Amino acid sequence: MQSLDELIFQALQEDAPFGDITTEAIVSGNEEGSAVIVVKQDGVICGLKIAEKVFKALDPNSLTETFADEGDWVNALRTVAKVRGKLKAILMGERTALNFLQRLSGIATLTKKFVEKASPYQVRIVDTRKTTPLLRILEKYAVRCGGGFNHRFSLSDGVLIKDNHIRVAKSVTEAVRRVRSKVHHLLRIEVETQNLEQVQEALECDVDAILLDNFDVDEIRRAVQLVKEWCERKGKRKPLLEVSGNVNLQNVEEIAQTGVDIISVGSITHSAPSLDISMEIE
Amino acid sequence: MQSLDELIFQALQEDAPFGDITTEAIVSGNEEGSAVIVVKQDGVICGLKIAEKVFKALDPNSLTETFADEGDWVNALRTVAKVRGKLKAILMGERTALNFLQRLSGIATLTKKFVEKASPYQVRIVDTRKTTPLLRILEKYAVRCGGGFNHRFSLSDGVLIKDNHIRVAKSVTEAVRRVRSKVHHLLRIEVETQNLEQVQEALECDVDAILLDNFDVDEIRRAVQLVKEWCERKGKRKPLLEVSGNVNLQNVEEIAQTGVDIISVGSITHSAPSLDISMEIE
Amino acid sequence: MQSLDELIFQALQEDAPFGDITTEAIVSGNEEGSAVIVVKQDGVICGLKIAEKVFKALDPNSLTETFADEGDWVNALRTVAKVRGKLKAILMGERTALNFLQRLSGIATLTKKFVEKASPYQVRIVDTRKTTPLLRILEKYAVRCGGGFNHRFSLSDGVLIKDNHIRVAKSVTEAVRRVRSKVHHLLRIEVETQNLEQVQEALECDVDAILLDNFDVDEIRRAVQLVKEWCERKGKRKPLLEVSGNVNLQNVEEIAQTGVDIISVGSITHSAPSLDISMEIE
Amino acid sequence: MQSLDELIFQALQEDAPFGDITTEAIVSGNEEGSAVIVVKQDGVICGLKIAEKVFKALDPNSLTETFADEGDWVNALRTVAKVRGKLKAILMGERTALNFLQRLSGIATLTKKFVEKASPYQVRIVDTRKTTPLLRILEKYAVRCGGGFNHRFSLSDGVLIKDNHIRVAKSVTEAVRRVRSKVHHLLRIEVETQNLEQVQEALECDVDAILLDNFDVDEIRRAVQLVKEWCERKGKRKPLLEVSGNVNLQNVEEIAQTGVDIISVGSITHSAPSLDISMEIE
Amino acid sequence: MQSLDELIFQALQEDAPFGDITTEAIVSGNEEGSAVIVVKQDGVICGLKIAEKVFKALDPNSLTETFADEGDWVNALRTVAKVRGKLKAILMGERTALNFLQRLSGIATLTKKFVEKASPYQVRIVDTRKTTPLLRILEKYAVRCGGGFNHRFSLSDGVLIKDNHIRVAKSVTEAVRRVRSKVHHLLRIEVETQNLEQVQEALECDVDAILLDNFDVDEIRRAVQLVKEWCERKGKRKPLLEVSGNVNLQNVEEIAQTGVDIISVGSITHSAPSLDISMEIE
Amino acid sequence: MQSLDELIFQALQEDAPFGDITTEAIVSGNEEGSAVIVVKQDGVICGLKIAEKVFKALDPNSLTETFADEGDWVNALRTVAKVRGKLKAILMGERTALNFLQRLSGIATLTKKFVEKASPYQVRIVDTRKTTPLLRILEKYAVRCGGGFNHRFSLSDGVLIKDNHIRVAKSVTEAVRRVRSKVHHLLRIEVETQNLEQVQEALECDVDAILLDNFDVDEIRRAVQLVKEWCERKGKRKPLLEVSGNVNLQNVEEIAQTGVDIISVGSITHSAPSLDISMEIE
Repeated sequence: MQSLDELIFQALQEDAPFGDITTEAIVSGNEEGSAVIVVKQDGVICGLKIAEKVFKALDPNSLTETFADEGDWVNALRTVAKVRGKLKAILMGERTALNFLQRLSGIATLTKKFVEKASPYQVRIVDTRKTTPLLRILEKYAVRCGGGFNHRFSLSDGVLIKDNHIRVAKSVTEAVRRVRSKVHHLLRIEVETQNLEQVQEALECDVDAILLDNFDVDEIRRAVQLVKEWCERKGKRKPLLEVSGNVNLQNVEEIAQTGVDIISVGSITHSAPSLDISMEIE
Repeated sequence: MQSLDELIFQALQEDAPFGDITTEAIVSGNEEGSAVIVVKQDGVICGLKIAEKVFKALDPNSLTETFADEGDWVNALRTVAKVRGKLKAILMGERTALNFLQRLSGIATLTKKFVEKASPYQVRIVDTRKTTPLLRILEKYAVRCGGGFNHRFSLSDGVLIKDNHIRVAKSVTEAVRRVRSKVHHLLRIEVETQNLEQVQEALECDVDAILLDNFDVDEIRRAVQLVKEWCERKGKRKPLLEVSGNVNLQNVEEIAQTGVDIISVGSITHSAPSLDISMEIE
Repeated sequence: MQSLDELIFQALQEDAPFGDITTEAIVSGNEEGSAVIVVKQDGVICGLKIAEKVFKALDPNSLTETFADEGDWVNALRTVAKVRGKLKAILMGERTALNFLQRLSGIATLTKKFVEKASPYQVRIVDTRKTTPLLRILEKYAVRCGGGFNHRFSLSDGVLIKDNHIRVAKSVTEAVRRVRSKVHHLLRIEVETQNLEQVQEALECDVDAILLDNFDVDEIRRAVQLVKEWCERKGKRKPLLEVSGNVNLQNVEEIAQTGVDIISVGSITHSAPSLDISMEIE
Repeated sequence: MQSLDELIFQALQEDAPFGDITTEAIVSGNEEGSAVIVVKQDGVICGLKIAEKVFKALDPNSLTETFADEGDWVNALRTVAKVRGKLKAILMGERTALNFLQRLSGIATLTKKFVEKASPYQVRIVDTRKTTPLLRILEKYAVRCGGGFNHRFSLSDGVLIKDNHIRVAKSVTEAVRRVRSKVHHLLRIEVETQNLEQVQEALECDVDAILLDNFDVDEIRRAVQLVKEWCERKGKRKPLLEVSGNVNLQNVEEIAQTGVDIISVGSITHSAPSLDISMEIE
Repeated sequence: MQSLDELIFQALQEDAPFGDITTEAIVSGNEEGSAVIVVKQDGVICGLKIAEKVFKALDPNSLTETFADEGDWVNALRTVAKVRGKLKAILMGERTALNFLQRLSGIATLTKKFVEKASPYQVRIVDTRKTTPLLRILEKYAVRCGGGFNHRFSLSDGVLIKDNHIRVAKSVTEAVRRVRSKVHHLLRIEVETQNLEQVQEALECDVDAILLDNFDVDEIRRAVQLVKEWCERKGKRKPLLEVSGNVNLQNVEEIAQTGVDIISVGSITHSAPSLDISMEIE
Repeated sequence: MQSLDELIFQALQEDAPFGDITTEAIVSGNEEGSAVIVVKQDGVICGLKIAEKVFKALDPNSLTETFADEGDWVNALRTVAKVRGKLKAILMGERTALNFLQRLSGIATLTKKFVEKASPYQVRIVDTRKTTPLLRILEKYAVRCGGGFNHRFSLSDGVLIKDNHIRVAKSVTEAVRRVRSKVHHLLRIEVETQNLEQVQEALECDVDAILLDNFDVDEIRRAVQLVKEWCERKGKRKPLLEVSGNVNLQNVEEIAQTGVDIISVGSITHSAPSLDISMEIE
């Protein structure tokens, strides 16, 4: 329940604080027309509902018909939607609609590529908090459209004790102790570790999840082994293992094979190139 | 005069609607501390003032010292800033500050690469309206930090008659006529053209600028020639020539050599990968 | 694309933060009724759509029928609209609707008087930035309804180098140089001048428009002559000439006859008396 | 306790959604400077604090010195304030500061003219709700600066039963009855009357105040007489008598002499011409 | 005319900044369903319209049928409403709808209990400004639903000179003098008194209402007597008498019998226990 | 990081949309003064920082000295704070400051009473989502000041599968399955149960926490036993046990003795009577 309408309104205001002077001069009245939205590059389509809302914001009577579902892989030159309504609204909303659509489709497309590499293994590709300010909900939605999973949404809905926290608390143990005594009982506790010693310390704190930060593949394998043996020895439930840092399309499969549960990838949101999509008046 | 403070506040709200539960458990009171911001990858730094404002928003008494100027090219492992203040604020603001900093530095860095290719020639590298919703002013600022120039900011402060407008008006001539009779006298008129016939028609309409959309390099050369000859013959001031569409780091220099005035590049804002930057508590 | 709905909502809030206590006591339930809006004074009607939106904001099912078009000259006692809907909404919205309608009609009416004096000549009557804070888009719309044209909408969509800028830059030439190297290529450059020497300097800078500020009619004539001769001698396109300062209904025709292109009149927005309009329950 | 800061912020946004492109090109850095605000026309100055806040909004370190008090009558060419600070802020804020200052001073000046005519008599000159949407608190402040008094601020803080209410309730008596049974006990009840019969009926309802709407001077005198006699006869406290409608500088003194308590004048807010004020960089 | 829609939107945002993660996992698509709202405790129902708006905000096509009128006394286990629509919206809106409904019904119920005790006497039970921040209009509406009356809504729509004001002005007389010379003519003046001396002073100031603050019942009787005698002796209209402070269900009837006009009770808004109401999916 | 400043601003706006007319008439200028805040009833003080912010919002130079810490138990007639500053600000802010302070102290006080009963046992007293719309963060803070713990803050930061969800999913098992496959890995899963059969089913689903809803004390004891035995038999970690529904000061100790981990109490937020606190100008 995000204020998507408000976001769209602000995006339109940003793009036309005093109106679209070109369009208003060219389209004299309330002529109606239609336009198609065409994908120019293979990829996953995501954001059609937002594009539809952009046109609705400018012309409440506009109608957007879609020819692909959110999350579909589509090939270049595929017409994914058609909007009918006041020409003024269509022309004025074009860039804002496409800006949302291209970015979200870009994220979904890159996510899909990671997911495909990881799919043979029991592992979730998840996003991070490295998202565009004010667009997090949309970008995390795009990750799901690309087949990925979400990590926590914010600093409020998940506990991740990071290196900087450990530095402040002086040890993993002390950091875990402080957090456990305060946070509500529906939250798990995850600790970010830099080496096997910290993994060991986290295990002894009985945390719910352990993040292996910037480990190379060999270190990941050793961590997986260490966790497995320790839990078997202690008769404990195995904590979740997450890998993060320098994950790319070249190494993601090898990481997935190590047996970790979760691979988080910042680049799927912060460095996904835009998908090429355009709109044409018919 | 954008509401940067409001934008930062909303970004912080997005990242912590009910506070940073991990940090609040770990940092018990008002302990002070410091952290350094380190660039992990060569590139142009951009957004240090915004990072500073993020920390100020959380701790008005925090102090951010910077060791690089906006727009500087910095090498990997360079410490670009140091923030001192309440540890709670530093830990809580980290991700939001970095999210702004990494995106803007990514844009500035990519822009700089285009600008360097084009610099021997009399040509401006400019941005487009393909920016992130709600971040346009910041992203256009990043383009300037990277040595680029800005195109119009919105649909309200510049006239660009695009293919969809021409389709509606039925001809370049009619579109120009309608616009000229309406817009205020401080605005120039630019027409987007798809071929040399449209360039010719735009010349006859006496427009101020002509956009060559998706022309290949040969076509660009021919358009430059056509415009030069026509203006000499008629004794007219030459309109500005802008190239747009499919410009990349491979072809930008060749395009720049054709003698056009402006090259607009969408990818510098919509597809710039984030610059890797991190923060470490000292 | 201005947030007209938000503006209307705030105006209604201002007029009734805790409701309309008189009306709520008098109208017990959801009785329906109708009211007519009657112009009490000859003038140009402007703002009927805004009045309609005021009543819609209070009663989404209300219907407003209009008997005049925006920009029509209407005579005293003419009924220009009829609104039907919940009596509570009609009574509560009356003053807010009329406040918009009377101000905008007042501006349109005064504009029309200037336009009629200037109409035999090739000259645009334009507005200024001397508008009511937060109502600029509406007031500039009223100017167009009165037959006038708009000047730039803001400091962001047009370049006008004024006397204070020249004082800072030390000369017209330097000011123009600085601006030309920075602003985007779709903007023209206009310079405000105080005397013929500055007009000459502006000509030599090849600016797109020259504003003659507070020139008397004789000086205007001399400026027109100077510009004409200089451009002919140099074979240059003539810059636009704008007159501003102390223009009134007595002298506007004489100024229009001098051959300038644009006359800007602050008083049409900042000093237009309200048009007398009232609402009566039937 | 109005959100004056928010209003000023929005006014500045309206005037420069993407910055002041001229000033930003001309003033390269953070140069400081000063400017004087000079009144060009005799009148009452009002709004200096708002002008000061405009410059503070753009440059928190700017300093505004004032040489006149709010409500002072000042003569043409008087320097009323001097602002020092960043030149960028001064140039960018000029028009917004003056737009507030000129409008409010215009209202205060016109109010003062009415007040001076009425001053020998025991009568309040008061404003109406015919104010500019969103500026009511400021405009009512200007009325007080001009020596006038305020009427109710809104539909929520005062009961005025108007002709349209009476039409709905079918009679003055019924309208008064309904209101009296509902509104809180700290509010008086005023009834708008169109003729002496209604005045009589209002008297019998024992209302606190009676508005004589559009009465000519003779009718006003008769109403005053009727009220006086009726109250003496009944041993009742005399209700307040207010005159409204077609009051101007020509007839206000004659009306004041009739012995009414209050004269409300819409034109002091809805039709006050702006006072001519300018700013000059030193 | 309060922004109830905005309030509801913010309440929903507060309860689900990133959506209802449980419901979104459980309800896969757009399944429709219905739920009943059942009162679990005898009391006055208030807020059904707000509950309806909560569900509409989440599902514009949802329909809420009500089986009781606002202000009705209902018995435990009574089904007061049924909502049909998207299951997601119903589940997500449940708590927010009930939070409004339970609080408002709690206030209405407690108010009703006071009103019933006072009903045989000519006295209004009124509320105070001791309401929940941001919910004042709703809570004062709940008071009316419970049969009570409202006191002033704010510091802007009624004059109440309190003990702290008198301390600042040094005397009741001086405080009244200052207020009378400034406030608009549609407002009455009430003075809060601590003892009979102040009541006497207030009478001599000819105020419209006198508040007896924290008087015990004997003192109230003496104040009533004093006022009656003084007014008869002077031939003046009797000011309204209001009692405030330590009024509870035990003593309210005795106070009502003393002949005062108004009894204001803070606890009906600040300490009303919530009414138990629940929602069940059918 | 909640927008507490915005909340306070809106509360002040609500209480004085056009200013505090009484105070503005009585306090002519910028006189300074001081006032003490006195608790009239024994209880836990909570909200002094918010009161301080209220006065700061009206007078940025005001100073509030506090004589008690948040969460302290204070006795009647204790002076807990003293504010110095402009008298206008102190008088105008009084009610808003007290409204926050009284409500939060009321909640903290009632919470403390529950906590004291439960303190001998290993059990957390926690709040619910039954909070006042828009005040949740503050009310949950008050619960912590009273010695309680927080439950989840919203529908976004914790999974609680309630009876209505189970009805939709048809079984506990299916509901858990759906949730587990979707929510992020840092969230635990709690299931609300109505009887021992559901407790058993929840155990078999291996959930992290089980809520016993409206169980009587006997049933709670049996559920505790069932869970203990099942987990021992299966060698599983015991899920957390939470009790909710009809918990009051009479039965809370007996419930605490059963060995459950968490007792959630709606009444500490939805039905806490306000603590009596007043302000006096010195």
